[in-house]
Parts: sequence; C-alpha cells; structure tokens
Amino acid sequence: MKATVHIMLKNGVLDPQGKAIGHALEGLGFEEVGAVRQGKVIELEIADGTDKARIEEMCEKLLANPVIEDYKIDLAS
Amino acid sequence: MKATVHIMLKNGVLDPQGKAIGHALEGLGFEEVGAVRQGKVIELEIADGTDKARIEEMCEKLLANPVIEDYKIDLAS
Repeated sequence: MKATVHIMLKNGVLDPQGKAIGHALEGLGFEEVGAVRQGKVIELEIADGTDKARIEEMCEKLLANPVIEDYKIDLAS
Repeated sequence: MKATVHIMLKNGVLDPQGKAIGHALEGLGFEEVGAVRQGKVIELEIADGTDKARIEEMCEKLLANPVIEDYKIDLAS
C-alpha cells in the first residue's frame, strides 16, 4: 500500500521559499497570485496493513519537524 | 480561491533525496517501508475565477521542470 505525507510549515512560521516563488510569479506577470507557501510531499511504499500510527511515528521522528511543521497522512491501498 | 500544485519527479528519474529518507527510516527500525519518493507541494492563493490553464502556465514556466518532473493541479474555492 501507499502512504502520502504532506508537510507544510505551520501558519505563522515565515516561509521565505514560498515568498520567493510568489515574487518570481509576480515578476513573470502572474498578478492573480497572492500568498504562496511551499511544502514537501513524501510518498512511501509500505507493507500492507501498516497502521497509520506507525506513519505518525515516522513523521514525528524523521519526516517532519513538529515544532514548526504540520503534517497530514493519506493512506491508499 | 486556492490552488495546490503537487510536483514529483517522473518515474524513472533517480530520486536521491527519497532514497536517503528510505535508508534513514530503515535505520530507525521502520522495516515496513519500501520505496520512498520526495516531491514538492506549492499552495497558491489566486484570484477567484482564475483558469486552470493559467496555473499550468505557471508550472511550465516556473514551478516545475517539465523535463524531469510531473505536476498535478488541484483547485479549491
């Protein structure tokens, strides 16, 4: 089965990379764009029947920095 | 409205960052993990009524490298 983890900076944490993308888009003439935020997505192939709690453990220990990042886990078989 | 763009390396393109995450997870005892791939997610605040084609243009011009990356656009109002 497959797990997809989305990791985004928490609201209120400065995101200079997102800001840079926003400015670049504006410079290219995309003026309909407002705030931009960039995050990570990690796709994991995992053994069938793996518990979501196990993926949460991976996030807490390695994949995300829970101090400044939020994560969201989607499981698909 | 909000647009979310997922950018992943195309199948067949080496993903050393994903490989490194996979090895690190294995080293931490998460042996149920197989292949890992890392990508980017970009969240854009855009003016209401913006066409999806416009977001595609942003992807082609700036957000993704269409030679080695695939992108997927989700629009939400």
